[in-house]
Amino acid sequence: MIPEHSESRRAFLKGALAAGAVGAAMAAPGDADSVKAEVEKHHDANVRRLQTWIRQPSIAAENRGMNEGCALMMSMLGEAGFEAVTRVASSGQPGVFATLDAGASRTFGIYFMYDVKQADPAEWMSPPFDAAILDRAGLGKVLVGRGAVNQKGPQATLLAALNAFREAGRKPPVNLVFIAEGEEEIGSPHFSEIVQRPEVLAAFRKCEGIFMPMPMQSLDGTVTINLGAKGVIEVELIASGEKWGRGPKADVHSSLEAVVDSPAWRLIQALNTLVAADGHTPAIEGFADRARPLSADEKAMIRAAAAKQSEAVAMRGLGVEHWVHNVDWLESRELLAGRPTVNIEGLVGGYTGPGGKTILPHRAVAKLDLRLVPDMTAAGALAALKAHLTKKGFGDVEVKMSGGYDPTSTPKDSSVVKAAQTAYRQVGLDAVLWPRLAGSWPGYVFTGAPLKLPATHFGMGFGSGAHAPNEFYVIESANRNVVGFDAAARSYVDYLYALAAA
Amino acid sequence: MIPEHSESRRAFLKGALAAGAVGAAMAAPGDADSVKAEVEKHHDANVRRLQTWIRQPSIAAENRGMNEGCALMMSMLGEAGFEAVTRVASSGQPGVFATLDAGASRTFGIYFMYDVKQADPAEWMSPPFDAAILDRAGLGKVLVGRGAVNQKGPQATLLAALNAFREAGRKPPVNLVFIAEGEEEIGSPHFSEIVQRPEVLAAFRKCEGIFMPMPMQSLDGTVTINLGAKGVIEVELIASGEKWGRGPKADVHSSLEAVVDSPAWRLIQALNTLVAADGHTPAIEGFADRARPLSADEKAMIRAAAAKQSEAVAMRGLGVEHWVHNVDWLESRELLAGRPTVNIEGLVGGYTGPGGKTILPHRAVAKLDLRLVPDMTAAGALAALKAHLTKKGFGDVEVKMSGGYDPTSTPKDSSVVKAAQTAYRQVGLDAVLWPRLAGSWPGYVFTGAPLKLPATHFGMGFGSGAHAPNEFYVIESANRNVVGFDAAARSYVDYLYALAAA
Repeated sequence: MIPEHSESRRAFLKGALAAGAVGAAMAAPGDADSVKAEVEKHHDANVRRLQTWIRQPSIAAENRGMNEGCALMMSMLGEAGFEAVTRVASSGQPGVFATLDAGASRTFGIYFMYDVKQADPAEWMSPPFDAAILDRAGLGKVLVGRGAVNQKGPQATLLAALNAFREAGRKPPVNLVFIAEGEEEIGSPHFSEIVQRPEVLAAFRKCEGIFMPMPMQSLDGTVTINLGAKGVIEVELIASGEKWGRGPKADVHSSLEAVVDSPAWRLIQALNTLVAADGHTPAIEGFADRARPLSADEKAMIRAAAAKQSEAVAMRGLGVEHWVHNVDWLESRELLAGRPTVNIEGLVGGYTGPGGKTILPHRAVAKLDLRLVPDMTAAGALAALKAHLTKKGFGDVEVKMSGGYDPTSTPKDSSVVKAAQTAYRQVGLDAVLWPRLAGSWPGYVFTGAPLKLPATHFGMGFGSGAHAPNEFYVIESANRNVVGFDAAARSYVDYLYALAAA
Repeated sequence: MIPEHSESRRAFLKGALAAGAVGAAMAAPGDADSVKAEVEKHHDANVRRLQTWIRQPSIAAENRGMNEGCALMMSMLGEAGFEAVTRVASSGQPGVFATLDAGASRTFGIYFMYDVKQADPAEWMSPPFDAAILDRAGLGKVLVGRGAVNQKGPQATLLAALNAFREAGRKPPVNLVFIAEGEEEIGSPHFSEIVQRPEVLAAFRKCEGIFMPMPMQSLDGTVTINLGAKGVIEVELIASGEKWGRGPKADVHSSLEAVVDSPAWRLIQALNTLVAADGHTPAIEGFADRARPLSADEKAMIRAAAAKQSEAVAMRGLGVEHWVHNVDWLESRELLAGRPTVNIEGLVGGYTGPGGKTILPHRAVAKLDLRLVPDMTAAGALAALKAHLTKKGFGDVEVKMSGGYDPTSTPKDSSVVKAAQTAYRQVGLDAVLWPRLAGSWPGYVFTGAPLKLPATHFGMGFGSGAHAPNEFYVIESANRNVVGFDAAARSYVDYLYALAAA
């Protein structure tokens, strides 16, 4: 449907412009104001929408609430003005494809995810799926819950902005092509499949770029625009008596360690080859061979960013007292943007309960994530890890990849970036350009072939605790350096107008 | 009470012997037969008693069912003929002290434990606290349950033997001093405290030796007498951002591994210093300095034992295809008896659930047990481990010891050993003398100062799966190399008579 609509719309717009009408792309400043005025009026409903969303867990890793989570997001999209909202089957969890034809001349893409990370309620001060609004010292009223910042909070904020257009009786100034997946938190194993569907690909080919809503403000008063993101692979390393052909096939009494090989020790030894003696620098042979060093331009960006950002605020936020190797602030920023990593997410083997249990386990597992910079690839990282283990004599240690993404890069003169600079400038913020988000997202599906679209993150607001207990998102800010829900929603209105004009 | 009783008994016996009466220590062979005849008659009640025991979990590590388990065992002791059965408070779980004054001239000690290891029902073919009796190929009818072999099964078998004396209207041929603890599976942290109580110590000072019931038959047809046991310490090694002063104090997003130190990698590196490059040989400095090499006499015992035992049966039982370093059967037996070990029981850090979770954990833990040979000590091993970590630069890695024992040694000409040889010989078995059990038990409380008593394990029968899923104990044997419950109970009758005559 989309191509025909676009054609007829384009024809209409040509005529309108020829007749001197004001097109959607040339909205008067008053248009944005009338839309933004709706945000505050509907504050309670907007926040309730986010609470409803968080109260519906959708955890791909546990295959929990996925159908319900998908359906709920689809109904929210319909409410926000998307005309065609389609559930797209994949080999895994379904995706969602939607379009909003605003009759505008320009079209941009939006990426959402409807899954969240797992949460252990025992670790939370407020239950992770209660979405309680609590006071947080120095910040104001925050919504606490799994997905609060990653990504239901910012996504609900963008939806509030789209609803504001409807409430103001207007169309957004750009057409929107929307795609979402439900497996982001397990490494997006089927997202490429969803985007490769002909109707989806055709719709995205009409886009000038895509963005993902994300609160980009920092407590030090800066706001950041990412020109890319690291890639990642998530893997399990499994040492077992069965694959090794040594040690037991089932747990045995620990006294037998005198005569029986230990898969747990084997795992420790295999792991120990993956980083250098400093306990940090990746030592997987070939892993980072294609890692492109930071360019002079990127280093300059980082230098400018580090000068604006606060080291003390960053350290306090993370609860750390030193950066690795005691590097200084500038160098820590270069590492964050430029360095591939090998991280242990989890260790699990043998007896993991309280106290001890004198067994020799037949199996032990390390959960790792490896972050990648251009021009590394997820496939290349996996191959290097496997080859390295084999070369080091640990070919029996299984490597099970659960998901991963290639890194992404977006030019700083692309319309999605320039529009972000414009929108932030409207609220008095000179955005920090940042070469590469240290986290990862499946943006490579857009930035890579065949679409090769610019892609970035946009949004005001603040939250923290992604993947950790007590994840939160600021609803009413008491901190002058970050805005609350309503101002963040208004920033999306500004961004859409800026995209139309970029 | 015991000392007075003993004194009056001794006075009585002196008179009786002087008058030519046959003392308990000189029972006619027919006496044992009449007692043993009761075992089969009461088979069902004896097995039900064991089932009742197993159906009452007492797991010190989980502080589960301890009072109930203690009370249940106390009632069983009363039923079996112990006159004074006392619950002995300790700083941890209570112990049980009991005496059976048979009016005999000789007195021996018995050690029981009423706790069992934890059990995860999901791993069992039959629920661990159901105590179901199932057919097991090649073995016969076995009772499956936590504690079946370690140690409720053999303990219930000894109780069946004591009940048989009562049922035959007789007293055992030796006086018995009984002590039990409820914390064996967490390293007996308070057992010494229980034995050091004046009334307990006084009773044990009258003993010539002590034994622990244990099924010592092997599927290769041999039966073994241990002349000691390895010691052990159980410890947790904990790496954390908090103690380290580096890395995060709470889990953070894994992308931050580029700039934040990882306690999980620190744990891996600390662990890696504990064993040599072979992934097995202890490399903790000073740990084994006092390890006494096997003597020529011990090596000769091992050689004789290895010639009688079957390597194929041992490998099959453990589910292994190679011994460490591919050593041969004889050398594997020397390692089993003579080698200190450093074993990983469990690894637990960060995210341990299904799939992955992109966090950088602030804390990671390894659960270890270290086995000790004479003249190493538990205290010395702990000190060596701590000093080693500090010297290697890992002084921040916490070492939390949950319990441990010194190794034990018992002379082969002690009465508890000689009587065991006699009792086994009565059923046609030439027992294998074994220098040292590779497992551990708190026998050092008896063999060390101030008691310095010989101590060993005795028992016919067979079971397996201690500390593992599907632990079992043979009730009715279909295997010619091992006996079932009744014959094992009869062996305890023989042993008590042999102790009286040793």
